[in-house]
This record gives sequence, C-alpha cells and structure tokens, in this order.
Amino acid sequence: MARFEGALAVAAAQAGLVPAAHAQAIARVCSDARFDAAELARAAREAGTLAIPFVERLTAQVAAVSPEAAHHVHFGATSQDVIDSAAVLCLKPAAERIIELTRDLGDAAAALAERYAATPTVARTLLQPALAVPFGWKAAVWLSLVARGYQGFRRAARDACVLQLGGPAGTLSAFGAKGAAVAAALAAELSLPAAPMTWHSARDGFARLGSESAILAGAAAKIARDVSLLMQPEIGEAAEPARAGRGGSSSMPHKRNPALSMLALEAAQRAPGLAATLLVQLAPEHERGLGQWQGQWFTLRELFMAASSALAAMAAVLEGLEVDTDAMRANVERLRARLDAGAAEGYGAAAAMIEGALATWRGKGP
Amino acid sequence: MARFEGALAVAAAQAGLVPAAHAQAIARVCSDARFDAAELARAAREAGTLAIPFVERLTAQVAAVSPEAAHHVHFGATSQDVIDSAAVLCLKPAAERIIELTRDLGDAAAALAERYAATPTVARTLLQPALAVPFGWKAAVWLSLVARGYQGFRRAARDACVLQLGGPAGTLSAFGAKGAAVAAALAAELSLPAAPMTWHSARDGFARLGSESAILAGAAAKIARDVSLLMQPEIGEAAEPARAGRGGSSSMPHKRNPALSMLALEAAQRAPGLAATLLVQLAPEHERGLGQWQGQWFTLRELFMAASSALAAMAAVLEGLEVDTDAMRANVERLRARLDAGAAEGYGAAAAMIEGALATWRGKGP
Amino acid sequence: MARFEGALAVAAAQAGLVPAAHAQAIARVCSDARFDAAELARAAREAGTLAIPFVERLTAQVAAVSPEAAHHVHFGATSQDVIDSAAVLCLKPAAERIIELTRDLGDAAAALAERYAATPTVARTLLQPALAVPFGWKAAVWLSLVARGYQGFRRAARDACVLQLGGPAGTLSAFGAKGAAVAAALAAELSLPAAPMTWHSARDGFARLGSESAILAGAAAKIARDVSLLMQPEIGEAAEPARAGRGGSSSMPHKRNPALSMLALEAAQRAPGLAATLLVQLAPEHERGLGQWQGQWFTLRELFMAASSALAAMAAVLEGLEVDTDAMRANVERLRARLDAGAAEGYGAAAAMIEGALATWRGKGP
Amino acid sequence: MARFEGALAVAAAQAGLVPAAHAQAIARVCSDARFDAAELARAAREAGTLAIPFVERLTAQVAAVSPEAAHHVHFGATSQDVIDSAAVLCLKPAAERIIELTRDLGDAAAALAERYAATPTVARTLLQPALAVPFGWKAAVWLSLVARGYQGFRRAARDACVLQLGGPAGTLSAFGAKGAAVAAALAAELSLPAAPMTWHSARDGFARLGSESAILAGAAAKIARDVSLLMQPEIGEAAEPARAGRGGSSSMPHKRNPALSMLALEAAQRAPGLAATLLVQLAPEHERGLGQWQGQWFTLRELFMAASSALAAMAAVLEGLEVDTDAMRANVERLRARLDAGAAEGYGAAAAMIEGALATWRGKGP
Repeated sequence: MARFEGALAVAAAQAGLVPAAHAQAIARVCSDARFDAAELARAAREAGTLAIPFVERLTAQVAAVSPEAAHHVHFGATSQDVIDSAAVLCLKPAAERIIELTRDLGDAAAALAERYAATPTVARTLLQPALAVPFGWKAAVWLSLVARGYQGFRRAARDACVLQLGGPAGTLSAFGAKGAAVAAALAAELSLPAAPMTWHSARDGFARLGSESAILAGAAAKIARDVSLLMQPEIGEAAEPARAGRGGSSSMPHKRNPALSMLALEAAQRAPGLAATLLVQLAPEHERGLGQWQGQWFTLRELFMAASSALAAMAAVLEGLEVDTDAMRANVERLRARLDAGAAEGYGAAAAMIEGALATWRGKGP
Repeated sequence: MARFEGALAVAAAQAGLVPAAHAQAIARVCSDARFDAAELARAAREAGTLAIPFVERLTAQVAAVSPEAAHHVHFGATSQDVIDSAAVLCLKPAAERIIELTRDLGDAAAALAERYAATPTVARTLLQPALAVPFGWKAAVWLSLVARGYQGFRRAARDACVLQLGGPAGTLSAFGAKGAAVAAALAAELSLPAAPMTWHSARDGFARLGSESAILAGAAAKIARDVSLLMQPEIGEAAEPARAGRGGSSSMPHKRNPALSMLALEAAQRAPGLAATLLVQLAPEHERGLGQWQGQWFTLRELFMAASSALAAMAAVLEGLEVDTDAMRANVERLRARLDAGAAEGYGAAAAMIEGALATWRGKGP
Repeated sequence: MARFEGALAVAAAQAGLVPAAHAQAIARVCSDARFDAAELARAAREAGTLAIPFVERLTAQVAAVSPEAAHHVHFGATSQDVIDSAAVLCLKPAAERIIELTRDLGDAAAALAERYAATPTVARTLLQPALAVPFGWKAAVWLSLVARGYQGFRRAARDACVLQLGGPAGTLSAFGAKGAAVAAALAAELSLPAAPMTWHSARDGFARLGSESAILAGAAAKIARDVSLLMQPEIGEAAEPARAGRGGSSSMPHKRNPALSMLALEAAQRAPGLAATLLVQLAPEHERGLGQWQGQWFTLRELFMAASSALAAMAAVLEGLEVDTDAMRANVERLRARLDAGAAEGYGAAAAMIEGALATWRGKGP
Repeated sequence: MARFEGALAVAAAQAGLVPAAHAQAIARVCSDARFDAAELARAAREAGTLAIPFVERLTAQVAAVSPEAAHHVHFGATSQDVIDSAAVLCLKPAAERIIELTRDLGDAAAALAERYAATPTVARTLLQPALAVPFGWKAAVWLSLVARGYQGFRRAARDACVLQLGGPAGTLSAFGAKGAAVAAALAAELSLPAAPMTWHSARDGFARLGSESAILAGAAAKIARDVSLLMQPEIGEAAEPARAGRGGSSSMPHKRNPALSMLALEAAQRAPGLAATLLVQLAPEHERGLGQWQGQWFTLRELFMAASSALAAMAAVLEGLEVDTDAMRANVERLRARLDAGAAEGYGAAAAMIEGALATWRGKGP
C-alpha cells in the first residue's frame, strides 16, 4: 500500500499536479515506512476499512518530514484504489511463483512421459483393470492437463494483475484532463499494465484468476489421486520419493504414506469453494459494492497458497517418482491371464498422443 | 448419442474398419432412432450408466434391419465417449445461443453508453451518493464487463466443445494404427474439433466453461443489481421496460417490480455453486473416474440455463430501459447542494473511457 | 399450487372471510384443475414469476364455474406464499422418502456391523495398511455417520416443512384480526405446521435442509468410497452385489464396475455446491428479495435427487454386499507377516463401539 | 496440541498404562512447552503433517527432563487425534464467543422489536414499497432468524466439540481393555465430551458446524442488507450509529458509509464457499483420508472469523441504530397517497408475531 501511495505521488508530479519536491518527500517516506500492523488492524476494524487508518498513519509520517507534502498524500485516489492495487502488487510475484511451480510439474510429467513411453502398465477405469497402456501415456495425460492449466493461469494472471486507479467514483475525476496520464505514469512506476476502464466494480478478472488457481490445484490433485492409488501396497506400482522425515506415521513406523499427494488432495478440496466465493462477488452495488471487494485478498491468498502447495508437492513427487516397472509388468500379466492376451493390448494411438503432448509442452513459451 | 454412434460407424468405415454397407445401415437407423426415454432412464438407473442400455436398444434397432451391421454398433468406443461427446453436441448450439445473447446485451449497453455519454447521474459508492458522472459511463462499465465475459466464454466454449473419443482406456486401442484417422473422420462428421489428447480424465475444459458461464451470469447480475436499485421509487432514475403482464404483483396492483432483474439476480446466485461443482471434479481416479463425469451434464445444463436466463432478461431490460434523465439531474442537484458544486463534479476521464469501451466492443469480432 | 389455493379458500371461509359456497367452488376446481405446463412456463418467463400466470389461469377456471367465487381466489395471499408453500408440499413427501432410504441404509450397515463383529480386516490409513480391525467395526463407523445424518435430516425437514403464509408484506394483513386463525386453518388443511413468524425473508430453514441433504449424500459417499476401494481386484475384499445388466462395461465385458458406488460418489460431488447456493441466499432485500427464493425449488429438487440417488444406491450395496472374508484374512496375514503379529492387532475397544453404535441406531425412533 | 499430549499422559496414568511420575513429567513440560512456530511449520511441510515434527520436538523437551518419561509421549494416540482434538480445543471457546455475539445481536433486535412495535414503516417487496407495517415487526423477523441460528449453532457446536481419540486405526487399540477408560479420563481432563465412536473418518460434525456458522453470517447479513438499504439518503429511515473514524471515506468527507453492514455482507459472501468445502470432505478413504481433515482447521478458522466479524458488526449496529421515525412516517404517507389509505395498511397479525418472537427469544435458555 505504501508503494502505491509513493508511486502515485510521483505520477501526479509528472503530470504537474503535485509539486515535485513534495512528491519526492512522500515517495521517500513511503519507501521506508513502517507500520504497527496489530494497531493498524484494530483501527481498520473500527473504521470498517484498512485504507482510512493506513492513509492517516502514512500522512502523519509524511507530515513529520514535510507538513506541506502531507497534503498531497493519496491525492486523487480512493480506498479501493490502494487496496485493490496493493492486492495486485502482492498477487503478481505470487502468480509468477505459481507459474514456475507449474512449469516444474509439467517438466517432470514430460520427463516421465518420455522415459516410460514404452513401459506397459494397467489402465484402470472405475478402479478396475482395463487394458495395458504405456505408463508414459498416463504421464502424458497428466501433462496435457498441466499444459492447459499453465496457459489458462498465465492468461488469467496477466489479465488480473493490472492497476486499479479510479478515484472517488471511478472516473479519475480529481486529475481533470490528466487522468489517463496519471494512470499511465502510475502503472509504469508500479510495472503494472494500466486498465482501459477502471475495474473496481467489474471484478471478473479476480474471478477468472480464482478459477484458474482452482484448476491448477485440481490438476495437481489428479496426479496425486493416481499416485496415491498406485502406491497402495496391494498395487505397488509407483511411490512418492523416499526421504527421512516424510510420509512417516506418528503411531505406525512400518507405514510409508503418500504425504505429498495428500497435500495436493487437501488443497484441491479447499480451492473450489474459494473460487466460488469470487464468482459470487460479481454484482457489487453501483460504483463501489458492499462486501464484494473488501475480503477478496483473503480469498485470493488462500487460493494461491492452495495452488502453490499442491503444485510444489506434486512437482517433488514426479521429479523423484519411484516407478516399479516389474510390478507394473506383473499386474499387466495378471490382466493378460484373465483376458486372452490380445484383448488386453491397449497401446493404440498412445505413442502419437505422447509425442503430441510433449511437442505442445515444449512449444509453450517461457 | 445416436448421432455420435451413426457418425462413428461412418468414420470407422472410412478407415476401412467397418464394411461400408453396415455403416450405412447403422447411420440410417441412428438418424431415425426413437427411444422410450422413461424406460431408458429406469434401465440406466439399474445399469449405473445411461450408455449401456442406450447401446443395447440401439443395437437391437440396428439388428432389426441388419443383424450383421449390429455387430459394429459402438465399435471401438466406450460409454464415456458417447456420453461426453453427446454432451458436447448439446453444449455447442447452446453456447452459440449464449454468445448471441451476450452480444445482444453488449450491444444494448453500448447503445446506452453512447446515448447517455453526457447525461449527468449520481455515482453511488457503498450505496451513498458520491459524485456526478455521465450515465453513459456507468453503462460503459457494464459494457466492459460484458465484453470480457464475451471473449472469455467464447474461448472456453471453443476449447470445451471438442470430440471425446478414446475407447476403453483412452488410447483409441480398438482402431489399431488408424485411431487418429477415425477420430479425425468422426470429428469431421460431427463438425467438432478433434482433441490431440483424450480428455476423459482431464476435465478442465468443462470446468473453465462452467466458470465463464457463472461470470456471464454475474455480469448480467451486476447490471440487474444497479437497475433494480435505480428503480426504487425513492430514487426513480431508471426502470425496466413496461409491458402488460410483467413485473406485476399477485397481491398489490400498484407495484411495478424489477421482474427481469430478479431473473438475472436469481441466476447469478445459483451459478457459482454449480461452477464450483465442476472445479471439484478435476481429479478422477486413473483412466475413468467414479462420479466426476457422470453428472456433469446436469451441472452444465443448469449453468447454461442460468446464464442464458440472466443474459436474455438483461438484454431485454437494457434494450428498453426507461431512463428518467430529469430524476437523475434532480438527484445530482441535491448532491451539488450538499457539496459545493465543484466538489460534486466527477466526469474526469469518463468520456475517454466510454470511447475505449465502445471501440473494444465494436472490434470484438463476430 | 392448486392444492394451496383450494385449502386457502376453505381456511378463509372457516374464518368467515369468504362465503362457504364460493370456497367450496374454488376448492372443487382446485382439486381437479389441469394446466398446460409448457404454456404456463412461457407465461411465467414473461411475467418474471410463475405465481401470477398460475393464479390468472386458476381464476379463469373458477370463473367458468362461478364468477363470484373467482373474486376470492388467492384471497389474502401473495406470490411467494403459494410458491414457497407449494415447494414445501413437494418437499415433505420427498423428505419422507429420503428418511426411509436412510433407514434402509442404516439397517443394512447395522446388519453388517453385527454379522462381521469378529471378522478381521485390514484398517487402512492414508491408503496404507495399518492394523487388523473387525470388519463389523468399519460398518459401525458407517452406521454412526448414517445415524447422525438421519437425526439431522429429520430435524431439518421437520423445521423446514412448514406453511408459508404472509400476504403482501408478511403480516397477514388482508385477514384483519383473523390472520392467525386463517394460517392455522390453512396449515391444518395442508397437514403442515404453521410458522409462528412468516419466513419468506428468513430462509435458514431451507439452508439447513440443504446442508443436511448434502451430509446424507456425503455419508452414502463415504461408504461408496470404501466399497469401491475394497472392490479393486488387487484388494478384492468386498464387492457390490452382482446382478445382470449392472456394473458392466460397454467396451470391456470382463469388467465388474462399482456402478452403484459411483452413483453415490457422483451425487456427493454435486450436493455441496447446491447446498452452498442456499447458504448464499440468506440475505434477501427487505420483505421480499430479488432472486433468493425464486429458484430455490430447482436447487432443493437437485439436492433431494442427489441425496436419494446416493442413499438408494448404497442401501442396495450394503444389503447385498459380497464380503470375501478369506481375502480379508489373507490381507491381514500379509500385514502380520510385515509386522510382528502383536503389533498388527487393532481390535482395541472395537466391540464396545459396535455395541454402542447398534444401540444408538436401534433407539433412534421411527 | 501440547495440552492434549499432557492430558493424554495423565489419562493413561490414571488407567495404569503409564507410570504416574512419567505422566507428571510429561504434563509439566506440556504446560510450559514453547515451540518455534516458523521452524515447526517448515518441518511440517517437509513431513506432510504438523503432528510428527510437533511430537518429535515435544518428546525432545520431555527427554531433556526425563528420558524415561519421553518414551510415553503421545502414547496410544495418532497424528489425527492430536490435530483434531487440538482443533476442537480452539473451536470451543471461539464457539462460545460466537454464541455470546449472537446473543448480543438477538438482544438488540429484541429491543428494537419492542421499542418500535407500533412505529409505522414501509414494507418493501422486490425493492418496491408495498404496505405500512410496524418497524418493530421488521426487527422481529430479524430476531426470528437470529433465534433459530442461535439454537442451530449451539447444537452444532456442542455436537462437534468432542474429543477425538482413536489411536492408529480408530479402535483405541494401544490401550487394550482400557480404551474407553482412557478416552473418558482424557475427555474429563480436557473438559470435552468423549465420543461414543471415533469420528476421525466421519466428519459430519464439522460440516454441520460450518453450515451453522454460514447461517449466522447470513443472518447478520440479512440485517445488514436491510440497514444499508434503509441508510440510502434517498430513503434515510435508519442509519448505523455515528462514531468518529468509522464509515468515513478516504476521498469524500461528505459521505457516511454503512461500514459495519459492509463487514457483515463481506463475511456472508465468503462463508458459503467455506461451508461447502466441509461438505465436500465427507468421504475420506477408509480409516484416515487423504486431504479431508488436514486443512479443516484453516476452513473452520475462516468460517468462525467470518461469522464473528458479521455478528459483532451487526450487534453494534442494532445496539445503536439511529431510527428516523419521521422519515419512516413520511415515506408511509407517500405510499398512502399513492394508494387509498386503507389499502396501505399492513399491520395485520404483526403485533402477535412480535410477541411470539420475543417470547421465543426470552425462553431460549442461556
């Protein structure tokens, strides 16, 4: 929030609306400002919004340096501008981290698809053995899901992480004819795109970002579902990478638990409800709604944490996945024994599908 | 479902896997097939899936014409192929209708943005009068939301409405080396894109489509929220178009209710929970999951009905919106009287924002 | 809806507010009234509510018999009264059916708990074998969940299935001093409890009923989860009852699928989003909200169908569950071989817990 | 968590399973134990569960005092026991606070119902003026909703806040014949009821508690919806209590915002998605599920914070509600002028309903 206010002063100065010296004073204070978070939280509860006590405290800190400059703090902006834009400033690097984790997960799935492109395993439908397929094809299905999630999340993050600046009603009214110039300068200062239209009352960007976060958590959970089922000792075809202190039991030392898959499954159970919350909040009243935007940072924070928890866990799983090709072959033989051998063959177009999924992933761009 | 089976026979014949005469017999029966829906529903409940009794009854109808052809019904496909692809065949024209309704809504918002670009109205934040802004700018904010929803839904519909054909395990195993050719031919027969990778266990396409449906319902509800608030007689700045038999009360003839806005608000309250259901279903077990895909047609049907109900209602509202510019001006004057007049001016960059929103909408493509 | 209107006329006549002969005419027409549902649906869309065109058509049917009586149709009621009360009249027998299915499921779980009270099976935590426990104890855990759901749903159904009668504003204003008497008489006519306070704008009853429906679907799904995992051929400890035409595959005749468990799992994935919709609709505007109640019949219908689908499926499963006690014992032996035998014993207080669960269930009342 | 482990040692000692001196040593360490939360969180991520590193660190602290006693730490329990029971120990006082806030809100609504039992105000249906009703009746509708939520939440909290102790598989196997005795002693130590059946895999208690939390948030939001609408200056019939530093605007000093109502509406938009998450988690795998319980503390924490935020805000609003009876009367007169005066009267059975709601509330128990 301080970063927003400092950049706003600089942007307003560039447009000639605030004296440069005052803008510099504000920017300097903002870059070093410290706040008593607990005290601020209490005041925010009193005020019904964090922005007002925050601006008060920041203004006091500026006034201590320059009483004149203090008059220009928050110039032309409104509570929702600083709160929404600050949320975006937090979301942007977090989204970059999620993109990186998704890339890790996709790379690990791609490596498995390639390495096991000819390794037979049992496909299971409705939890019943069906046909022999390559294990690499199973990994390629995972990869196809991750790849679409990667594109979807990147697009949603790019579209959602834009500056919010609208002023009291959303029309940039305080800046006269210079509204667009101030918004552009502020956007540049904060390395955010400017929005052609203020989005304070049109919050579909966050809604899409939430759904794509839930989809990434779900993609990780799909892999986790399969790994945890393969790791049942009665099946025993794959296992999470072993590591001291992970997957143990506090009461049964003999167990080896799918502890990382569990993290992904946990996250994917929480994400849809959070994403639905953002879909519920699309109809704020008039030019600033009652309740829709005020808590979205909580919701987006939980969603991003859920998605990154799930992705990080499953990237680690796939990077070190222990594949028991003997067990896979044995289970395939058992299936062949039940059917006549030809009826158990299910490779079909798997090789081409693997190729296609790998090519799509490798061509996905940075 | 019959359309899928008929086209599958034709596609398999093109690949030389089914005799052409048998494929023609199947296709003919499929194009005229009739089913006793209630009886089929009871059998589906017994079987746990609609596909099996459906294929049985279809096979019997083919056998009545050609016992040999009957052996080739459903050749190489599995239950989920016919169910998922049939769902897509229903969704595609429904999606086109939703796109058309969204276009109507956007056009109506654009017309208001243009017509009232200079008409002063009161912007309201947290339900309190804030500043004077052009009513056309308010409509342009609506338009910006509709325009993004239009792009998002079109993309999601295009990505979700693709053929599902995988056969028993998803690898097109029954078609030998000709899997890709059969899939391509079937896709062409059904005028659907083929999927590079079967998506029977990777269901993010429907999840995205669900979220975009909820976003469109939400966009309509945002407009409905504002219209219904403006239509309060104590404010009286706008009203839904009057029409005999609409918006009346069964007990109070003096009332004029925002009946269409109500429909949009109703839909937008139902859509997020439905969209969340699709986000919950991203982690099916292995190659065919227990429960994730079997009920998605219910969920998507309700979502599409919610979105189209909301969009149709609000397109009708905006096309005939009764705008009381005198009431708007009077409320602006009341605000000016409370502030000093200058402080009430909030036009700011509104004109440029209106221009931008109109240009984006007009350049949106068909 | 006709039943409500007929009973309302009778109740108003009992209070002396409508001539008895007219009430009888209305009641007679109502008991035989037929409507063109499709035409009514179109008119409802036009009007924004089903109630108004319904009352119009009913009034016309009464007028054909007695023009004077027609003046008294819908006397003192409003749209929401007839729609909410009609929903309740549909929900009540449906709730009774759900209660019956829950009883069936609980009885079947209780029978298993008793029969297998001493049969060793492997408890599995995080999908890994943990200890030997009695299979009857596992069934008793299911039973404990079903028993609480049974109590919860019965209470919620009883509290939600009450008459809604409020008139235009909710105060029974049209009946003068006789409002409570009319409400009591109408409630008696319809065999519904009267509400001490009209609940048209206070819709927690439906919200609780929705949550309890989702909990019952979830209870059935818990059992389905376990059965479908036990039915994996690699584990093979239990199976759904075999029956011609159930659990087959349209492409793989060798498979035996957990088709009924799938139905329960499907339902339990849909129910939470529907229940959340009812929780979203708790804050209608003033004395009649925009959107909150108008679509709740859709939501409750889907919820009830989901819950009953899940319960019926799992009652059938548990009633005919094929338990392979040899396979259970073999898996227990395998576990004992990995641990030292004593460390694998997990009976603990299982017997007492089974007793307790059975006693609670048997004492649950009708 | 330390409190649980200390009490467990004491309970096991009472049953003669742990030497009394060792139990005392453990209990002493537990009562003073301090943990490096950040370090513990990192280790929990590594381990996939908080319980294992927690028990390790606690055991080390005990070992520093008594190496022999350290062997008895966590005796007979498993990870889920300590995590679920610790969650309950946090939930119980939080639930008491929520009950207290609900009581405050109900008392304030009751006071309004009484004070304004004869004050005319306009009932509004679908946001349109309908009839004159007493403002006290409107408050009595609020009260009826709060009263049912109070009963529902108390019951759900009582049923959910029970000890979880099951040991490795849920059967209390480590305690031999003394399982029930240890559970009873531990429950007594922690002032929690013991559960007749372990609920680690049957999580309906938390699901019901979540739904009731959402219902309370919704009840507060219903009141907030009405107050914020009444506070529109164009209507001006009621206002949140004025207080320096609350409800101001960071850009428009003339505004007075419904800042507390906003908090309630915000909370009620977030709660349903969170409650749905708990409804999604009812079908864990076998005797300990993958993901269902591990994150429920996050979800319940957010739900309780949402409910208490909403309740506290609206209790403050109703306790100090500024009611403008002149504005109410003026709006009623305006309505009477549109109708003929008699047609505007809507008191009906309002007085009796107010009486009933007050009596129910006063008889509600502590």
